[in-house]
Amino acid sequence: MSKDKVPSNNGITRSPFPNSRKIYVNGAIHPYLRVAMREVRVDETAANGAQPPSSIALYDTSGPYTDPDAAIDLLQGLPKLRDAWIERREDTELLPEPTSVAAKNALSNGSSAISFPNQRRPRRARSGAYVTQMHYARRGIITEEMEYIAIRENQRAEEQQDKGLLISHPGEAFGAGLPKGKITPEFVRDEVARGRAIIPNNINHPESEPMIIGRNFLVKINANIGNSAVTSSIEEEVEKAVWACRWGADTIMDLSTGKNIHQTREWILRNSPVPIGTVPIYQALEKVGGVAEDLTWEIYRDTLIEQAEQGVDYFTIHAGVLLRYIPLTASRVTGIVSRGGSILAKWCLAHHQENFLYTRFEEICEIMRAYDVAFSLGDGLRPGSIADANDRAQFAELETLGELTQIAWKHDVQVMIEGPGHIPMQLIKVNMEKELEICSEAPFYTLGPLTTDIAPGYDHITSAIGAAMIGWYGCAMLCYVTPKEHLGLPNKKDVKDGVIAYKIAAHAADLAKGHPAAYIRDNALSRARFDFRWNDQFNLSLDPDTAREFHDETLPSQNAKTAHFCSMCGPKFCSMKITQDIRDYAAQRGLDDAAALESGMQEKAKQFTEQGGEIYINSVRQS
Amino acid sequence: MSKDKVPSNNGITRSPFPNSRKIYVNGAIHPYLRVAMREVRVDETAANGAQPPSSIALYDTSGPYTDPDAAIDLLQGLPKLRDAWIERREDTELLPEPTSVAAKNALSNGSSAISFPNQRRPRRARSGAYVTQMHYARRGIITEEMEYIAIRENQRAEEQQDKGLLISHPGEAFGAGLPKGKITPEFVRDEVARGRAIIPNNINHPESEPMIIGRNFLVKINANIGNSAVTSSIEEEVEKAVWACRWGADTIMDLSTGKNIHQTREWILRNSPVPIGTVPIYQALEKVGGVAEDLTWEIYRDTLIEQAEQGVDYFTIHAGVLLRYIPLTASRVTGIVSRGGSILAKWCLAHHQENFLYTRFEEICEIMRAYDVAFSLGDGLRPGSIADANDRAQFAELETLGELTQIAWKHDVQVMIEGPGHIPMQLIKVNMEKELEICSEAPFYTLGPLTTDIAPGYDHITSAIGAAMIGWYGCAMLCYVTPKEHLGLPNKKDVKDGVIAYKIAAHAADLAKGHPAAYIRDNALSRARFDFRWNDQFNLSLDPDTAREFHDETLPSQNAKTAHFCSMCGPKFCSMKITQDIRDYAAQRGLDDAAALESGMQEKAKQFTEQGGEIYINSVRQS
Repeated sequence: MSKDKVPSNNGITRSPFPNSRKIYVNGAIHPYLRVAMREVRVDETAANGAQPPSSIALYDTSGPYTDPDAAIDLLQGLPKLRDAWIERREDTELLPEPTSVAAKNALSNGSSAISFPNQRRPRRARSGAYVTQMHYARRGIITEEMEYIAIRENQRAEEQQDKGLLISHPGEAFGAGLPKGKITPEFVRDEVARGRAIIPNNINHPESEPMIIGRNFLVKINANIGNSAVTSSIEEEVEKAVWACRWGADTIMDLSTGKNIHQTREWILRNSPVPIGTVPIYQALEKVGGVAEDLTWEIYRDTLIEQAEQGVDYFTIHAGVLLRYIPLTASRVTGIVSRGGSILAKWCLAHHQENFLYTRFEEICEIMRAYDVAFSLGDGLRPGSIADANDRAQFAELETLGELTQIAWKHDVQVMIEGPGHIPMQLIKVNMEKELEICSEAPFYTLGPLTTDIAPGYDHITSAIGAAMIGWYGCAMLCYVTPKEHLGLPNKKDVKDGVIAYKIAAHAADLAKGHPAAYIRDNALSRARFDFRWNDQFNLSLDPDTAREFHDETLPSQNAKTAHFCSMCGPKFCSMKITQDIRDYAAQRGLDDAAALESGMQEKAKQFTEQGGEIYINSVRQS
Repeated sequence: MSKDKVPSNNGITRSPFPNSRKIYVNGAIHPYLRVAMREVRVDETAANGAQPPSSIALYDTSGPYTDPDAAIDLLQGLPKLRDAWIERREDTELLPEPTSVAAKNALSNGSSAISFPNQRRPRRARSGAYVTQMHYARRGIITEEMEYIAIRENQRAEEQQDKGLLISHPGEAFGAGLPKGKITPEFVRDEVARGRAIIPNNINHPESEPMIIGRNFLVKINANIGNSAVTSSIEEEVEKAVWACRWGADTIMDLSTGKNIHQTREWILRNSPVPIGTVPIYQALEKVGGVAEDLTWEIYRDTLIEQAEQGVDYFTIHAGVLLRYIPLTASRVTGIVSRGGSILAKWCLAHHQENFLYTRFEEICEIMRAYDVAFSLGDGLRPGSIADANDRAQFAELETLGELTQIAWKHDVQVMIEGPGHIPMQLIKVNMEKELEICSEAPFYTLGPLTTDIAPGYDHITSAIGAAMIGWYGCAMLCYVTPKEHLGLPNKKDVKDGVIAYKIAAHAADLAKGHPAAYIRDNALSRARFDFRWNDQFNLSLDPDTAREFHDETLPSQNAKTAHFCSMCGPKFCSMKITQDIRDYAAQRGLDDAAALESGMQEKAKQFTEQGGEIYINSVRQS
């Protein structure tokens, strides 16, 4: 364990994905936009003849790290992609220095050995200005962020038409459906204006590549990282963040509760290409020595400003944990399992006062809108077990979150709603329905849910099941669960396992919703599989390294990569090879007129059936 | 690679699960029945005081291997649990020797070095007799198998009432619902008589512990093993079989297509406590040197008898792959992906004749009923990719399977129906609905389905999502998919990963259907988790070894097993600890009268809200 060790450039993985390169697509409304994507070259030389090489574009969360042309230095931080866009709006100002007491202390307390070396000045809305994406959207402005997102979400799907990769099934949408055809910048603007989607993009996190969270877009996933009092260093957390983005995390939550929280967060923010979320009450609690009763609004407010000025893009705020709801948890099997929820419950009971996050909510909105921090309204009373699912405490809190959503929107502050947790399958859908209704279609952001409690060590799977389902039903972002959930803090392997399981869930949900761009990758991979283009199959997969490694375990030779069979069946039993024979046979004899063939064969089959009674009844005994 | 090495007793894992012992529950109708279960001792010494140790009983597929008192010798095979039951019925006879040509050849071809040493005489129905469980059920007979199953399915749930572990949510059932209360032997009989459930129990596999496959029972899972031309030995396959049962496989399919198929199967059958399924066409094809066109009814029939007399409990038979359906697959992205389906398609096209499995179906039924082999009617035209899901070829074949179900039932032969494969989430439910309607509620047995094609290396997860959903919708058995699917043959680790993923899916489905016994384990584990009874949490989990190992990675010391916090949050942030404080606080001040408290707090909260407008509107700037 290397506590307090600062990040080094050696610790991060920068290699591009195999047969892939970073491409940049220009904007139309904002021609200077360069929207990053990953292009996978598909070699397409099929078993039955030569098709020319081709390529497909994939949504890419890995940031500049996978671009060999990008100069990366963790000590400098990523390029400030959005700085010019923000400046051009002329509604913000650079502050001479951080305005929170906490940030000032952090900078002066002699911890410079672990501080991010390239300190920047924080930015804030000019007095009276609203600088949220929701505010711009409501005023009809299509920001750079919105156009970036529209281009990014489309993944150049229109170019796949000719290649026959746009085969898709009709989706089944719940509530509003996906847009027909391409996602336009105007559609993005409209969804943000309605509050149906959020763009978490703090003006102090200009390094981030714009992304959107809303149910009429690709389903997103979040990866939690962060140290605890027991384990982890700054270096490890930055590595985990870059690693999680590599494998597909759309946002990262830094849930640190251990040492050097301010510095850890600064390192992560400056090097993160995706939005960062936090739970500010964790750091506030650290500041009062871990004694929940000692928390005050002043300390909490200072923490919000501290983190907003560092660039956190969304805050989990448990403002729905009301005093009167707490007794509803007393008879639960697992009580309160949200850390934030339990801290606030304890504070409420100790003071016999209402939760100060609730009573100060308008003030919090005013902070949020000065930096464009989005709310992630926390579900502090979410169930922690199958037994406690969908109980009164959970849904009582949701009612309050609906009320708070309206208040935030009054301030043009973006909102998403956090959801459970642990829910058996038959009770998942009602969670989504209630959320949409009570919270006026604000995006839902759930933790799993786990669909059973009996598999600690495998909760990435127990929860990927629930996550895929709720994603289909309309959940906009899925917070991953790693195999270590309930047992320990995730290491890099766990982070990757969690991210991949959740990419699967999110993608399965995109397919179920009928997202045409989502089908392209499945179809390209399936075609490669059928053609025995092993390398294409690996390269198009979520995890090319593992796919290749598993194949090599049984057939390691390079020849096996071009073999037209595999280790499962061997050459004789290969159904794909036989199917090719069938196709060849059909082509040879002009059987491609399937309709004619079918009617002719039906005739023949009818004969069989009619004759069957007489011809084929044999004796009972076979021996 | 140790080809042809015979199994040794050292290769198998026999240790009981931690804090667990094998118990045997006696029958009532048949008092000599001893129904095996696993009893987990729960130490129950909670954070807040001492509760006495307790125990819960779990459904146990691991067989005698986990009973330290059982004498296990792979060279002798397992005890013949059902032999006396079968003999007592007086409707079967012991044959002097195997009646198939293939078995005679196998015994005389000098391969004795790899043959199972303890050869037995095969049993067959007496002339004119029907010996299927369906036949008995329809005549009103409750067999030993039926009572065994009723006791096994109940898992002594009734004993959990007092411990408060029977908290459950109402299930959402599709079609018929679960029985209210206990499963009775009469209910088992009735479901089998109706064809809604099957008991795969060949009279030549008396070693197997009776189990049932039907949607009004616990959802079952199958694990595929078997060698191929490229890899594996008899020893490895037997080890995998015992290993798969240990982790929860309810049946095993031996899909061997390599060398020594007869001998491999004999070793597996004699040592398997769960039913064994096969796809006889694989071995038949081997017998004709892998040339599909050379297959004949005579060779296939001999193979059925060979395997039935060895004791195979169910046969996958692709009798629905009709000549006229084959052209429907020509324009698919992935054609025909079922090995059996493609072999038969090739045969049909080559001879331009109808599938002989279809034309000879009545003869096949006569063989099946003489040994009580159940049909698993194969879906040879199942989709092999998301693109091909729910297409005409797939559903055309299903219509034929429905027709064949009626024919099999006419012969009192038990039937289940195989299903896909690769299906996006929104198209899963209609698969289940069509199957129930077209196949008159015969149990459905699906492979996954995979809900996306983009994650080779993780198809245990892509498919566990689909499996959990279709299990909830009414699928009776889920065929596992391992991480190696599409890439290579599974090793022992892959087998375990596949089994655990599918136990999760099946159990999540049981919860969703509202099976009261299923909730007991979740509730016991959740309570242990909340009480920080770490060892109980590990012991109650699907995989105690992994749960413990993951916990130890961060907090290895023995003290941490009794610590009232964990590595995720450390002591200060522990929500469960805080909840306990809340409970104590509530108890101290008599706040357990939640109703009174709530109304009092609502009053208080109302005040807050009313005053909020005036008191808490502060200035916009915080700094």
